[in-house]
Amino acid sequence: VLDNIIAILKHECFLTQEKPILLGVSGGPDSLVLLDILYQAGYPLIVAHFNHKLRPEADTEATAVGLLASKMHLSHVMESADVAAFARSESQSIEEAARTLRYRFLFTQARKFKAQAVAVGHTADDQVETVLMHFLRGAGLKGLKGITYRTVISSFDRKIPLVRPLLDVWRKEIIEYCDSHDLHPYYDPSNTSTNFFRNRLRIDLIPLLETYNPRIRETIWRAAKTLNGDSQILSGVVDEAWKVSISQEGPGYLAFEMSILTSFSVGLQRNIFRRALEQLCPNLCVVDFTVIERATVFLTDPKLPDKIDLIGGLCAFRERGQLYVMRREAVLPLNDWPQVVPASGTLTMNVPGKLQISKEWILNTEYWDDPDQAWEKMQKNANPYRIWLDAGHLTGPFEVRRRRPGDRFQPLGMGGRSIKLSDFFINVKLPRRARDGWPLLCTSENIIWIPGYLPAHPYRLTKATRQVVYLTLMKKENKSNK
Amino acid sequence: VLDNIIAILKHECFLTQEKPILLGVSGGPDSLVLLDILYQAGYPLIVAHFNHKLRPEADTEATAVGLLASKMHLSHVMESADVAAFARSESQSIEEAARTLRYRFLFTQARKFKAQAVAVGHTADDQVETVLMHFLRGAGLKGLKGITYRTVISSFDRKIPLVRPLLDVWRKEIIEYCDSHDLHPYYDPSNTSTNFFRNRLRIDLIPLLETYNPRIRETIWRAAKTLNGDSQILSGVVDEAWKVSISQEGPGYLAFEMSILTSFSVGLQRNIFRRALEQLCPNLCVVDFTVIERATVFLTDPKLPDKIDLIGGLCAFRERGQLYVMRREAVLPLNDWPQVVPASGTLTMNVPGKLQISKEWILNTEYWDDPDQAWEKMQKNANPYRIWLDAGHLTGPFEVRRRRPGDRFQPLGMGGRSIKLSDFFINVKLPRRARDGWPLLCTSENIIWIPGYLPAHPYRLTKATRQVVYLTLMKKENKSNK
Repeated sequence: VLDNIIAILKHECFLTQEKPILLGVSGGPDSLVLLDILYQAGYPLIVAHFNHKLRPEADTEATAVGLLASKMHLSHVMESADVAAFARSESQSIEEAARTLRYRFLFTQARKFKAQAVAVGHTADDQVETVLMHFLRGAGLKGLKGITYRTVISSFDRKIPLVRPLLDVWRKEIIEYCDSHDLHPYYDPSNTSTNFFRNRLRIDLIPLLETYNPRIRETIWRAAKTLNGDSQILSGVVDEAWKVSISQEGPGYLAFEMSILTSFSVGLQRNIFRRALEQLCPNLCVVDFTVIERATVFLTDPKLPDKIDLIGGLCAFRERGQLYVMRREAVLPLNDWPQVVPASGTLTMNVPGKLQISKEWILNTEYWDDPDQAWEKMQKNANPYRIWLDAGHLTGPFEVRRRRPGDRFQPLGMGGRSIKLSDFFINVKLPRRARDGWPLLCTSENIIWIPGYLPAHPYRLTKATRQVVYLTLMKKENKSNK
Repeated sequence: VLDNIIAILKHECFLTQEKPILLGVSGGPDSLVLLDILYQAGYPLIVAHFNHKLRPEADTEATAVGLLASKMHLSHVMESADVAAFARSESQSIEEAARTLRYRFLFTQARKFKAQAVAVGHTADDQVETVLMHFLRGAGLKGLKGITYRTVISSFDRKIPLVRPLLDVWRKEIIEYCDSHDLHPYYDPSNTSTNFFRNRLRIDLIPLLETYNPRIRETIWRAAKTLNGDSQILSGVVDEAWKVSISQEGPGYLAFEMSILTSFSVGLQRNIFRRALEQLCPNLCVVDFTVIERATVFLTDPKLPDKIDLIGGLCAFRERGQLYVMRREAVLPLNDWPQVVPASGTLTMNVPGKLQISKEWILNTEYWDDPDQAWEKMQKNANPYRIWLDAGHLTGPFEVRRRRPGDRFQPLGMGGRSIKLSDFFINVKLPRRARDGWPLLCTSENIIWIPGYLPAHPYRLTKATRQVVYLTLMKKENKSNK
């Protein structure tokens, strides 16, 4: 057993003797055995004890761990917190709250001491209980693979790993080790209380499952090992799929190319959505199957509205071939759209002249004397941000502004009929969130041109046009992008 | 529910109305509901009933199913078998034996009627029981994903699929459907007997698990759906890895490139080995984790012997960078090796001349008069199946033969010292199974040359050589390969 653990320390946990390991020591048999093994093997250690203050013996045990560390000439750190109060304030179970506070403490100390890893004494029995718990709660492969020798839990630290060198050792072997190495662990009496879900599994359910399969513990432990391998393979596939389908990433949102997502199998889509939700909301414990299913249906069913709620303040939103997974309050980028800044602003424009309407967009105007040339250019024009208008019908002053309540517009091609600007925006499917800031070129009374779409009927070029105004809205080359 | 099933018939089971569906009808609620739905939807049906003869009511039920089919103007087929006797002879449980015989019957009939599929009435509850059973027995992803809408079970038929359109319907809904559609199913009293493992799960374990998670059935059913998607992704990766690593395939054996296998993750190696075992031995139910683990260790640990037993008469064997997974009795191909055929044969050789030693290999001999040219050629020679010898020391008759007990050889470069031929073969690492048939060029007393390796010391070219014998062993171009 010991040889095996030494190999696991090196080849599975990737521990070295160069930097300290922060070891969580409760004073129970698992952590004492791990302390003993790491100490004997010569790894530099810091002993960390978190006092949950949930039992009368808690302080005695904390003191004992401190004394043990001193006797071994090891640095030790301690902390305690009001677990019950935290559980209430976060509406977590006592178990969850204790875990959260304990790991926060361990990783805070690990950062402080520049530790290579946080080590904990989880055993093969813990593995079996974890897998069984995930099975009962309906986890996928990620849960059924159980816990691993080495893992990064990004909600606690993005770099320092959590290592579990005793994952192949059974509790029975731990007790034997304590006996033969003269270790004197504390036994937590709450481990025998069936008030806790995990304890019920250990005390009631696993012995019952042994009547169905006498080797159920080993069976589950081995299944976890196999599923962990499968999960790594799957993870590799999802990594690749993620890379090819993601198009944007920003605070509180991720965007994917819908055409690429739909080319994936439903299984792969589910994995992408699950990962997106986890990335945006790392504290979501178990993402319900129905949430994932809703997202995959949303991807392909055009009859659904363009924005649906998912879970925990996250929603899915689709627009112009992009599927956004986002926090409800996230501000999405305006992509390539021209917008008038500031929001309240109405900008005065001189003809000819240049007007910067935002950091990125400039409106350029000039007079042309040759209406025939303008006519010809206009026939070939493919850029909707460029227009030639009849100068004779245009009387200044001109302004570029955002839309206002009651705005109406006479789109070219409707014989001068005017419609509500809001209806026009709907008809041309301008994304809702682009509408408020969309630039409108106006006289004091009328909209002359909506860049990207149409000019107004009265200002169109005709055979009678003598003088022309040529307008272009241009995006500045953003040199920092190149 | 009904709309959903109609969609599943089309889009998940891929059933059409062109060819008949062979429907397994026990007379119980599940199969009666499926019969009713398929009949109403207009699919052409053949009713098949397998009489297990395990219960006193069996014959009555068989007759009732026959009458029902007649009343509906459907073809029907029946068969019965002694399940108990089969179970004894195959040392299977009654459940396993019943399943084997039933499916054999269904697929035999399906082939006879050119059916597009065999349909059975498995429900969402069956799914939950299956997944739970696999969990308790330690199956990997392949078992935990449960049963699927459409699957090919190659041990019964390599093409005709088994379909399960009721996989999303709960038993409760089945009973309601029976009531509201005036169907009168038989209820198998053995379903309530806890003698059968599956019944114990249904009657005892699932209700108990509901005390841990009241929605355990739905939870497991959903997990299966997710894991099925993951399993398909994994399957795609394994397909690819299989294709790039497999090097040969023949009766009872598969060979893989070890250098490619070792470049895979252990998880992927496990999947390849599992699939290889399943392919060679389709009746293996659950391949034990330790068997797979033994195979992965065998792949990388050079200290192990070159052949190890795996399971069920299968073994793993490595040779020259190839890893074979094979039945113990399989005859591996002799690859590119020359062999003397027939086994008993000693072939007489004339110099100059041509001698066909096997279907593929020909030995060619000729005299050369220019020893200097021979010397020069020999210096540049890179083909071990070609040699120049001193004709002056060679006196006929010559023969090409297999090895015999007591054979000795004087390898070139050892100053004429002679060693046992068996030791020479070991030294040069000639694969064991190639040794018996390996061609030896001999006088009546001595070995002159071992093609592929060395000539014997006395017959080497020297400065004194006047006349030369040039020998080449050549493989015939196999035109059918090109």
